[in-house]
Amino acid sequence: MLTPLVFLERMRKYFKDKTALVYKEKRLSYQDFYKDVMIQANSLLKLGLQREGKVSIISSNRPEFLELYYSVPYANGVLVPINPKLSPKEIAYIINHSESEVVIVEESFLANLAEIRKEIKAKLVLIENNENPIANESAKKDVTTFKEFLGLGSFSEIPIPVKEEYSLIGIYYTSGTTGLPKGVMLHHRGAFLNAVMEALEHQLDLNSVYLWTLNMFHAAAWGFAWATVAVGATNVYLDKVEPKTVYDVIRNERVSHMSGPPALFIDLVNYMKENDLKFNRKIHMIVAGSPPAPVTLRTVQELGGYMCHVYGLTETYGPHSICEWKEEWNSLPIGEQAKLKSRQGVPYVGFEMDVLDPHDEPVPRDGRTIGEVVMRGNNVALGYYKDPKRTEESFRGGWFHSGDAAVVHPDGYVEVIDRFKDLIFTPEGRVSSVLVEKTLMEIPGVKRVAVYGIPEEKGEKVVARIETQEGVKLTPSEVIDFCKSILAEFECPKVVEFDRIPMTSTGKVQKYLLRKQATESKKL
Amino acid sequence: MLTPLVFLERMRKYFKDKTALVYKEKRLSYQDFYKDVMIQANSLLKLGLQREGKVSIISSNRPEFLELYYSVPYANGVLVPINPKLSPKEIAYIINHSESEVVIVEESFLANLAEIRKEIKAKLVLIENNENPIANESAKKDVTTFKEFLGLGSFSEIPIPVKEEYSLIGIYYTSGTTGLPKGVMLHHRGAFLNAVMEALEHQLDLNSVYLWTLNMFHAAAWGFAWATVAVGATNVYLDKVEPKTVYDVIRNERVSHMSGPPALFIDLVNYMKENDLKFNRKIHMIVAGSPPAPVTLRTVQELGGYMCHVYGLTETYGPHSICEWKEEWNSLPIGEQAKLKSRQGVPYVGFEMDVLDPHDEPVPRDGRTIGEVVMRGNNVALGYYKDPKRTEESFRGGWFHSGDAAVVHPDGYVEVIDRFKDLIFTPEGRVSSVLVEKTLMEIPGVKRVAVYGIPEEKGEKVVARIETQEGVKLTPSEVIDFCKSILAEFECPKVVEFDRIPMTSTGKVQKYLLRKQATESKKL
Repeated sequence: MLTPLVFLERMRKYFKDKTALVYKEKRLSYQDFYKDVMIQANSLLKLGLQREGKVSIISSNRPEFLELYYSVPYANGVLVPINPKLSPKEIAYIINHSESEVVIVEESFLANLAEIRKEIKAKLVLIENNENPIANESAKKDVTTFKEFLGLGSFSEIPIPVKEEYSLIGIYYTSGTTGLPKGVMLHHRGAFLNAVMEALEHQLDLNSVYLWTLNMFHAAAWGFAWATVAVGATNVYLDKVEPKTVYDVIRNERVSHMSGPPALFIDLVNYMKENDLKFNRKIHMIVAGSPPAPVTLRTVQELGGYMCHVYGLTETYGPHSICEWKEEWNSLPIGEQAKLKSRQGVPYVGFEMDVLDPHDEPVPRDGRTIGEVVMRGNNVALGYYKDPKRTEESFRGGWFHSGDAAVVHPDGYVEVIDRFKDLIFTPEGRVSSVLVEKTLMEIPGVKRVAVYGIPEEKGEKVVARIETQEGVKLTPSEVIDFCKSILAEFECPKVVEFDRIPMTSTGKVQKYLLRKQATESKKL
Repeated sequence: MLTPLVFLERMRKYFKDKTALVYKEKRLSYQDFYKDVMIQANSLLKLGLQREGKVSIISSNRPEFLELYYSVPYANGVLVPINPKLSPKEIAYIINHSESEVVIVEESFLANLAEIRKEIKAKLVLIENNENPIANESAKKDVTTFKEFLGLGSFSEIPIPVKEEYSLIGIYYTSGTTGLPKGVMLHHRGAFLNAVMEALEHQLDLNSVYLWTLNMFHAAAWGFAWATVAVGATNVYLDKVEPKTVYDVIRNERVSHMSGPPALFIDLVNYMKENDLKFNRKIHMIVAGSPPAPVTLRTVQELGGYMCHVYGLTETYGPHSICEWKEEWNSLPIGEQAKLKSRQGVPYVGFEMDVLDPHDEPVPRDGRTIGEVVMRGNNVALGYYKDPKRTEESFRGGWFHSGDAAVVHPDGYVEVIDRFKDLIFTPEGRVSSVLVEKTLMEIPGVKRVAVYGIPEEKGEKVVARIETQEGVKLTPSEVIDFCKSILAEFECPKVVEFDRIPMTSTGKVQKYLLRKQATESKKL
């Protein structure tokens, strides 16, 4: 039976004293962790959770969240992690669409639920925050506290209840920038295989220490909630993901692995450079979300880190492909290395990937022809919950269609150039906003960029928004001139804005907002 | 679909120039390797191989053998590797019992088949050996040469034909010391998962170089024929497994991984010590078959190697458990480390193991109570081919019963103390022959030992047979006195013989032969 629950069974049998979790002063062994999981699972059953009953979780990263990754399936339930920063309306939609029977919410996010409380039929369980309680005590009415919840259950061992490896383990709603969220259905078999491949590709083992900088509600936590327990690594939690805190924990806990979007690493390495700091243990950084800029890759390497570029979506349990590194590339100039590493690469062992043209034929390996990334394998979701139409659309022909535009290089490595919808159609040709962004990141003093298209007479024109590092001043013509030295004329920005870049809670640039702002300002 | 064939598909798509195989002057890329596999598979189909048709292979380790690990399943066939050193009678039994349609035999072993040719209906394909042809040219009559065989097929791509992941990929006949060989049925899913776990536990990757010192016909080649291709490692072949050759290849090819029984490593490190040699790259040695002696572990470490102790049987595709190493053990004295490492440990990630008493209850974790090792998981065989009776016996209750006697230590690590049938029942108590052997290996100058029981008045008495290193002289009383300083009186050998130790072709001591010799000499 392929289910990640076997990982925890192995750990509690053979490595019960191994540290499973670290959070501030708290250190839980795998035995403690297992006990907590059993108490939670028994409490869920006492609460009346049905077979395949859904449990929503609205929480920041914290030990209870990792425990729920196990206790919910031990109670034969299905995990529904929700991004706490979604609007109350979206949250209510997810809770109700998933038919969640229980919603576990951290105190800091309880206020968000105030206006939607009457729409929700699920039982509410509150993870209290004594250090930082919410002002509005009345919001706690009709809510079970986590302590009361745990009091329902007791420590008695529950055998693995999974009967069918394709049964649901979780539903992850993708925070699409348009339309209603889609509930991505993940199964036990996929979770097991994704975890094992994650561990294999990143050489996680019993002595690894994994830092949770990645949001646990996001894209099945990229498989790391299961992969760390598979090998018995230590999971380290943070109060907040902020460069100084992150660096201090890395040093104190001897962190060996961490993952997240490029923004996380940009902030961290900038802080380290400013303070003349280095890593004290070789740290393996797994980056995805958008391609890391060459300058970031270079800096990480200088500080003693190793950056590994992966790619995937919620529909593939997080990472599906990896820019697998070839030994011979180590002797190339650092600029060349960065260029190679900015590609999304090849599928993980055991998975499949291709780039298809509009006729569903693979594009040529010329590094130029743009097609859509499609993925297949044991780690691909079952589809969208209660949405056969969008399931059929995205999973047609046995492949998951990602909506990402990519080219294939002569060596077979895939490079995602953009979301299809973020390609800019200028009168002179199609421009990859990502390519322009990479170029802009090479300008000294540039901290963050977003490139997007706005309509003009015969198509779209390229606009660049830039955040500079503190104290740095740049002019639009300096920026445009730099681009001209590297890009084709039609790919260069026509407009350069120096302003804040709006980001989603998972670290993605909200280009639709930029486009909207531009369109609205035009109207005024 | 879980099948190891996806590994080769991934390699030929993304790493076609990576070196797959090295054999003397020959270097095959993964593209070359894939081409060979396709030609072989097409040839097998042209030869008329049926769906699930069996293909026997009688060969030493060589590139064609690894290719057959893939070409036979691509042709929808089932691999039946046969130990070439078995008696002609046993070989005929396996060929006929498996209903092999094709037998591929290396020239050096063709003579063995002479007397059984008329009993075999299968088509014979001969891998010729131009450097060392057999004397008897007439034996080649009615035989297809490998060249002719390859001429039947051509390079055309065959898609993965597997429809069901539990379908057979191989039948491995166990060379039991008594009774007829049993055909262990292995399936695609198990082969895939075993390979992945092998790679995970031993941190194999794209830059690994694996040396084939392990017989490829033995116990599914411990999963390495699939694991190396899963990650894209390089497979290095040898003409003969002999210390100088092995050492030279390790140095020249920068070998990172090798595996085999303790005897292999004993011979290698003895040679290296005699010649004052060290390893030039950290080498990961995977040892199984019987526990490595502390002295061997110590020497390997001194020479720059890392020895990893694993345990498993053909019924579990080779290794199933590993003496998983804890970081904190590195600070223990080397003697203590060796003691810890001589244990068979804990199951691989995703597998299960236990030690059961005669009532099928787990034995206490006291390091003393002896029970039988049982194993469960996705890597356990389907049973014995056409032998429901012995299948039911060995696989009852969902567990594979190994026939190995073991204790469980307080930390949960399993230590195999003997085959049940090799325990010695002295009047004063049960003696583990392995424990006595380990003690004897601590005596300076001892090269190889075998401890067994022979009947005496009220039970059995302990007999030790010893091979000493060249030029070393020992007396029985020196040996017995050394044992008395470590073991209980009743565990010490009563008789010490200095003589050659008979071994099976897979490196196991043939104790039944020793017992037989002792009984016969008594009769004379």
